[in-house]
This record gives sequence, C-alpha cells and structure tokens, in this order.
Amino acid sequence: MTERIGFIGLGVMGKPMAMNLLKDGWTLYVHNRTRSRAEELAERGATIMDSPRQVAEASDIIITMVPDTPDAEAVYFGPDGVLTGARPGHLYIDMSTVTPAFARRLAEAAGRQGGDALDAPVSGGDVGAREGTLSIMVGGSEAAFSRAMPIFRTLGKNIVRMGEAGAGQITKACNQVVVALTIEAVAEGLTLAERAGIDPARVRQALAGGLADSRILGLHGQRMLEQRFQPGFRVRLHQKDLGIALDAADSVGLALPHTALAREHMKQLVRQGHGDLDHSALILSLTADTDASE
Amino acid sequence: MTERIGFIGLGVMGKPMAMNLLKDGWTLYVHNRTRSRAEELAERGATIMDSPRQVAEASDIIITMVPDTPDAEAVYFGPDGVLTGARPGHLYIDMSTVTPAFARRLAEAAGRQGGDALDAPVSGGDVGAREGTLSIMVGGSEAAFSRAMPIFRTLGKNIVRMGEAGAGQITKACNQVVVALTIEAVAEGLTLAERAGIDPARVRQALAGGLADSRILGLHGQRMLEQRFQPGFRVRLHQKDLGIALDAADSVGLALPHTALAREHMKQLVRQGHGDLDHSALILSLTADTDASE
Repeated sequence: MTERIGFIGLGVMGKPMAMNLLKDGWTLYVHNRTRSRAEELAERGATIMDSPRQVAEASDIIITMVPDTPDAEAVYFGPDGVLTGARPGHLYIDMSTVTPAFARRLAEAAGRQGGDALDAPVSGGDVGAREGTLSIMVGGSEAAFSRAMPIFRTLGKNIVRMGEAGAGQITKACNQVVVALTIEAVAEGLTLAERAGIDPARVRQALAGGLADSRILGLHGQRMLEQRFQPGFRVRLHQKDLGIALDAADSVGLALPHTALAREHMKQLVRQGHGDLDHSALILSLTADTDASE
Repeated sequence: MTERIGFIGLGVMGKPMAMNLLKDGWTLYVHNRTRSRAEELAERGATIMDSPRQVAEASDIIITMVPDTPDAEAVYFGPDGVLTGARPGHLYIDMSTVTPAFARRLAEAAGRQGGDALDAPVSGGDVGAREGTLSIMVGGSEAAFSRAMPIFRTLGKNIVRMGEAGAGQITKACNQVVVALTIEAVAEGLTLAERAGIDPARVRQALAGGLADSRILGLHGQRMLEQRFQPGFRVRLHQKDLGIALDAADSVGLALPHTALAREHMKQLVRQGHGDLDHSALILSLTADTDASE
C-alpha cells in the first residue's frame, strides 16, 4: 500500500470504486469534473485535486473511469491532462469502456514517457462496483498487470489478463455484443409468445433449464415481463459499446449483422427518448414495430 | 397401461421414444415410411402396420413424430391417413414440430370425430429421446393432457401444458427463436475476438459466469472453438423451425428482424451444402462474409 493512487472520474461506477480503495487503506488523490461528487470521498480522507495533471503529479498509479472515448481522450491527452504530469514509473489504468485503438495509443504514449498502461474495463454494473465484485478484463504487459493486482483485488473478483494493450477492451466489446444479442433473442421469443396469445411468463419458465437458458433470460426476461426498465445498464451506454464493437470489427474487415441491427434498435430507442432506460427495454422496439392496423 | 398406443414416424427421435414406451410395458402399433426402421421395435414386441389408417384402427392413442408440417398433413389428413381410421375416444398426440395453425386444425378435426388432440413438440434432441429426458411443451385440453400424462412421463422430464391447441407449437417456436439468436450472439462475440487477435477460448471463459453466460455459450461456444459441427441439431431443421416462428409472427402482424436474419444465414448455409451440420455452424456464415481482400 505504498503506492499513491490517483482516481479520475467519480460517476456511478467510479465513486464506489474509489470508496472501496479508501476503505482498503489506499492513499487517494481524486478529481471529477463536477467537484461536489468528490466531497464524500474527501470526508473519508481522499485529497481533491483541480485537474488530471495535478492528480498525475501527486500519484504513482492513476486510475480513470469515464463515460466514453472522447472523455478518456481529454483526461489523458488534453491540456492539463494526465500526460502533461507524466513521469517515468507512472502506471495508468483506464477502466473506462473505450475503443481498443485508444487503449493501444495510451499504452504507446505512456511507454514513451517511461511509464506503462493497462486497459481494464469492467462488467458487473454499479452493484459490482459497490460490492467490489466487478469482473475486470485486462490488456497490457504482465509486469503492469502484477503491479495493479492488489488494486484489482480490492475492486473485483474475476480478474483476467487477456493479452497486450487493447485486449481488455476487445474482450469487453465481445461481452457487450453477446449481452445485447442475447437480450434481443429473449425479446423476440417472449414477444412472439405474448402476441400469439401465450403467457410469456410461462414460456420463460418452460424455456429455463433448456438450451434457451441464459442469465439474460432470467434477469432481463423478468424485467421485460414486468415492463420494469429502471437501469440497470442504460440503452445509451450499450449503444456506445456496440459502436466500439462495430468499429473494432470494421478495422479487421468483419461484418457483424446482428450487432449492427441491435445498435439500430438502440438508436431508435434513444431517439424516442428511451436512452436512459435499462437495456432490457430493447423489447420496446419490437412492439413499436407491430402493424398499426391490428 | 390398458390403452393401446400407435406410433407413426420412427426417425432419429421417434424410434428411441417408441423403444422407451415398449420398455415401459406399453402395447405398440407402429408405422414408418421406411419399414426397415420398424423392425428393431418388432423384435421387442411392437406390431408393424402398413399405413397410418391401420395404426389408428388398432390403437386408442396415436403418437406422431414426423419431420415437417407437410409430413404431419399427409399422416393425418392424407389417403389412408389417421383420420380415415378415426373413431370416438381417439387421442392424437402430435409431437412433431409443425405450425400452430396445423395443431389447431388437427384438434378441430379430431373433435368433429369425437376424439381429441394434443400438440406436444419436444426439445432435448436425440439424447433426450433415448434417455427419456425430453422437455415436452403441450397444447390442448386439460382432459387430454391428463390422459396423455403417463405416456409423457415415460418420454420426458419437464412436461408443461402451455394452453389450448397450438400453444405447445408456439412455445416450441419461441424456444427455437431464442436458441437460434443466442447462437448468433455467441458466434458474433467469438468471431470478433478471434479476428481482433484475442484467443476466443479465453474470451469464452472470461464471459462465462457474467451477464453474457448461457447454455449456448457453454455448449455451442465449445463446438465453435473446436470447429466441430457434427449434429447435434441440423441447420436444415432449425431453418424450418424459424420459418414456423416467422409464419406465426406474420399471422399476428409482428416483425422479428433478428429471427429473419438468422433464417437467411441458415438458408445460406443450406445452399452452401452445410444444411446437415449442427446449428453451431452458424458461425461459418460470419467468416464467409469477411472481406476477401484481407
């Protein structure tokens, strides 16, 4: 616990993660665009800094948890960004979900300044962040991974190094593809049942335990039946994640037709003002599709 | 066990099901287009009949297990079909996967002749058929369901009455939709991993246990990694089942875009000569799609 930790991005995910690090005894320098979100952490002993640069200057390891690639871009490469405060021996751990290309670019930049970087996106949501049970998918060097391990163990449970820089983000993208398409699978199955006059709750039960079974059938299937779409994980963010997956696929000449279709459904929901609903609300794009003359 | 059972359709599914009924002590009258497939059953005490009509005349309950709606059509409504041998008190149990519309038509025809009918499609494949562990999704009257229950208990484990005539077929269609689309989900996720240079086997492990987890990720994910596409469940049959689902959706004015796309992928595989591979071979339609200039 001799390393001083910087933590930038104290949103729904970042704040409880930083809180867990404090509780575990780490020394924390924190920054957030909206300063007020840092105050609860300050009461627990964290030091609030005015910029990513100041965080970097005060810390040995800098963790970032921001919403999207442009945010990470600004935090690291912007004026008063982390890299303006870089020094040899720095380790950057970007836990945001961003493009694999950004992860590789950050690792190169860190290397040029005598530091190192890991991409370490997570799954498990705000519950996992609060309870310290996140899954963490890591890309980067073995040495950096070992150095970060004590921190990861405070934040998560299922921690896997997937390969070199960018590999964590690619794994997260694959995860988001499978989750989105499994939601679409359950949505089409349950909607067919309901429209054909069969109780979709009984269909869900009949399917559970068979080949059609999935975590999504259990969790999101139930949300669909109850039409209870409080997040959870927002459609808006999942749409962004599928964009990352499709960009990654494009860059290797791969077509992902179902992922592309699911993203269109998400775009449609966002346009209709449903972007802040849970992603199980994808089922709404099916019912909105149905014939108005019925 | 006083009821005499007719069994028509002794294919990969029907033959082991009939065998289990024989072992359980039922009296069986059997018929199959290819007579030789009935002989093993005859050695165990079944009586081979020359037509569905003769089966009907000799039996109280008639079970059918044929590949597709036109086959069921011919077996029940054709010349020398079951209905030409109908009498009051007959119970028809069609365990084939056919359209819900056919199931309703058969139930009406049976009712007009003083009989009754159940649609009772199964899932669990040839292994479930041999081991007597099929899931059975049943549509039809409560009375008919109770009468059939001793038979169902010989053939399967998870036996659910879903509603009136056709409800079993609708449930099966929903199951086939969810299974097909979950296969597509896993195929897109694992292909993205592999093309982006990450070991798809490690990605599959990283995803297991999280929100992306499913029976398909476990079973079919493994088949995809090993490129081992022996059936299992044939692409050709799953394509037929998605056709049934899309027809059922059409009839209630519902669009199922992912199901439609998955069926196109299956058609493509059938055209390419892959119709007899396991449905996990859906992953091949992604890799065939990729840019030839890569």
